[in-house]
Amino acid sequence: MANEDFNTWISGTFAFGRDGQADVKFRKLHRILVCGKATLCREVFGDTLNESRDPGGEGAERYTSRLYLKHQCFEKACDTLAEKGFKMIASCSSGANGLAPTPHPMLTAQMSNTQQDFMNQRNSGDLEEQRWAHYTEYVFYREPQILSN
Amino acid sequence: MANEDFNTWISGTFAFGRDGQADVKFRKLHRILVCGKATLCREVFGDTLNESRDPGGEGAERYTSRLYLKHQCFEKACDTLAEKGFKMIASCSSGANGLAPTPHPMLTAQMSNTQQDFMNQRNSGDLEEQRWAHYTEYVFYREPQILSN
Amino acid sequence: MANEDFNTWISGTFAFGRDGQADVKFRKLHRILVCGKATLCREVFGDTLNESRDPGGEGAERYTSRLYLKHQCFEKACDTLAEKGFKMIASCSSGANGLAPTPHPMLTAQMSNTQQDFMNQRNSGDLEEQRWAHYTEYVFYREPQILSN
Amino acid sequence: MANEDFNTWISGTFAFGRDGQADVKFRKLHRILVCGKATLCREVFGDTLNESRDPGGEGAERYTSRLYLKHQCFEKACDTLAEKGFKMIASCSSGANGLAPTPHPMLTAQMSNTQQDFMNQRNSGDLEEQRWAHYTEYVFYREPQILSN
Amino acid sequence: MANEDFNTWISGTFAFGRDGQADVKFRKLHRILVCGKATLCREVFGDTLNESRDPGGEGAERYTSRLYLKHQCFEKACDTLAEKGFKMIASCSSGANGLAPTPHPMLTAQMSNTQQDFMNQRNSGDLEEQRWAHYTEYVFYREPQILSN
Repeated sequence: MANEDFNTWISGTFAFGRDGQADVKFRKLHRILVCGKATLCREVFGDTLNESRDPGGEGAERYTSRLYLKHQCFEKACDTLAEKGFKMIASCSSGANGLAPTPHPMLTAQMSNTQQDFMNQRNSGDLEEQRWAHYTEYVFYREPQILSN
Repeated sequence: MANEDFNTWISGTFAFGRDGQADVKFRKLHRILVCGKATLCREVFGDTLNESRDPGGEGAERYTSRLYLKHQCFEKACDTLAEKGFKMIASCSSGANGLAPTPHPMLTAQMSNTQQDFMNQRNSGDLEEQRWAHYTEYVFYREPQILSN
Repeated sequence: MANEDFNTWISGTFAFGRDGQADVKFRKLHRILVCGKATLCREVFGDTLNESRDPGGEGAERYTSRLYLKHQCFEKACDTLAEKGFKMIASCSSGANGLAPTPHPMLTAQMSNTQQDFMNQRNSGDLEEQRWAHYTEYVFYREPQILSN
Repeated sequence: MANEDFNTWISGTFAFGRDGQADVKFRKLHRILVCGKATLCREVFGDTLNESRDPGGEGAERYTSRLYLKHQCFEKACDTLAEKGFKMIASCSSGANGLAPTPHPMLTAQMSNTQQDFMNQRNSGDLEEQRWAHYTEYVFYREPQILSN
Repeated sequence: MANEDFNTWISGTFAFGRDGQADVKFRKLHRILVCGKATLCREVFGDTLNESRDPGGEGAERYTSRLYLKHQCFEKACDTLAEKGFKMIASCSSGANGLAPTPHPMLTAQMSNTQQDFMNQRNSGDLEEQRWAHYTEYVFYREPQILSN
């Protein structure tokens, strides 16, 4: 059994309200992506793994980045990894670049107020959330000796 | 007792004045979010935990991301976690994406000066603060052996 | 044999769909760049290394940042490095700054709707992907004593 | 003596010139903020601590985020912390969001050239610096046993 | 001999081509800044240090952030630091904020096509590079006992 690196991708949206605002927003994870050797991902996450988007096949040495968890709880995933002997060894995070594309972004200044109002209505809830959209990546690793016990 | 991962989310606003400016601004934390197994969060933070937004229920295995601390002092939270045997094992940070949405953002160029002045007055304090808005995430972890003692 | 630092650059595009959207997007790595002492890079990655852009020459002490892997699997690269005694010691990530340049960015507001429509068609798929474009850098290190065994 | 977490905030501006440009710019730190238990901050940094903005009072258990160093040398602060038994355990960084607010940002397109020229003159030096403005946060921690010796 | 913290600033530009594009771009470091106690920086980097921008003077306790390396190879700097007993203990990264200032940014929309074309020609190569501009900071540390041997 070789040592195995485990790269768990966390894609999350984090949003919180402004100072003094009643509605505190909490962490919202969209999806916990799991990347690594396919057989190892299955060994660790078992039934909690959604494999519907993974092409499958190709034996024990196949690596995949098309698996994700059925639940959206990051700490639960960490517990599962720790129970299997993995340690978190790295993390990094980055915000998205600007807001999601809207139709005709540069033309809004030329829209009528009615069109603009309609667009604002559709986007108003999204915009504050988009401002805080980001992804975070965690890397987990298991020492070889732990695996051979 | 299993090993437990503890994910404490820190949502903060950091702002400082320009070089040579009299009014130095300091760290302003909006809210310290706490995520993880609900029973563990309560064991660690006890009375300092605000549970008003947590749905509760579902037994010892329930994970939550709807708890936050009653105080806004990051170092105090770190001390509490260290006293309970947790170590900080990861941190990452990201700025927000652009500024908070203002009504009719692309239409301001067509406003009268009076409207514009009014809007600048409302936003002038916010903008410099928004530029530095960011969140930081810290992950804390406790080795299983410490818990079983 | 001296101790060797190993800097593996990961350039990736990360994109995911919105909440409740059917098409979940996964991690897409464009290219895994490998930087460090050229002889060491070859010792570690062997045939999986693309050397076509590396100028070569200049002996054992030459450092290069013009090598990349033939595959795009980050976890496979981590496994290879771990098998050779390297440990991941640092990681950091950052998003790209804004979107890719489009021709005449400031002039789009003056385009006809037809031109604008054409441009939106060409860019619509790209924009959501560009929002999530980022790079991540990992640093791997091998202790000198491991190498001399 | 309990174990103490120490959160030193570094607020810096980093700027460098373009490739081949004569004037290389260097790191410019605006202010090194120090956060943590007030008595501990004083024990560690002593006379190098500026306490003029700290409200004071409230005994040994008071935490503060209103202290900063009299000098702007990050490495000197690290040496001081290391001499007192602290270790750096985490760091994270994030850029500011966009540029600092200018008066009537959306109205500049409608200004006369004279007004615009004046504004460019005022802002030209600032803009390149603002592009690189960022903050970095470091967390330092001291194990309890070191303190009790 | 006291323990010494070593803060090496890495300022780099990272750029890569789009998926399926022939011209793969590689890491381009503009300049490796070195910050810390001046005597220690010289002890570690010796002749590879460019001291032309350092004011000098003031004895063994002087800290500086005005030194940089004559070469632009990050891994070579890491090897040098490791040979002298330093360990990398932290890293963080952040992108630049938006693109570099162009003259009259808000007025471009009012330029003639000829002026605009000229400007696009000058900027087209720069823009994709600017999108990926970022800096990365690494902190190196040497334990006191290693130094006294």
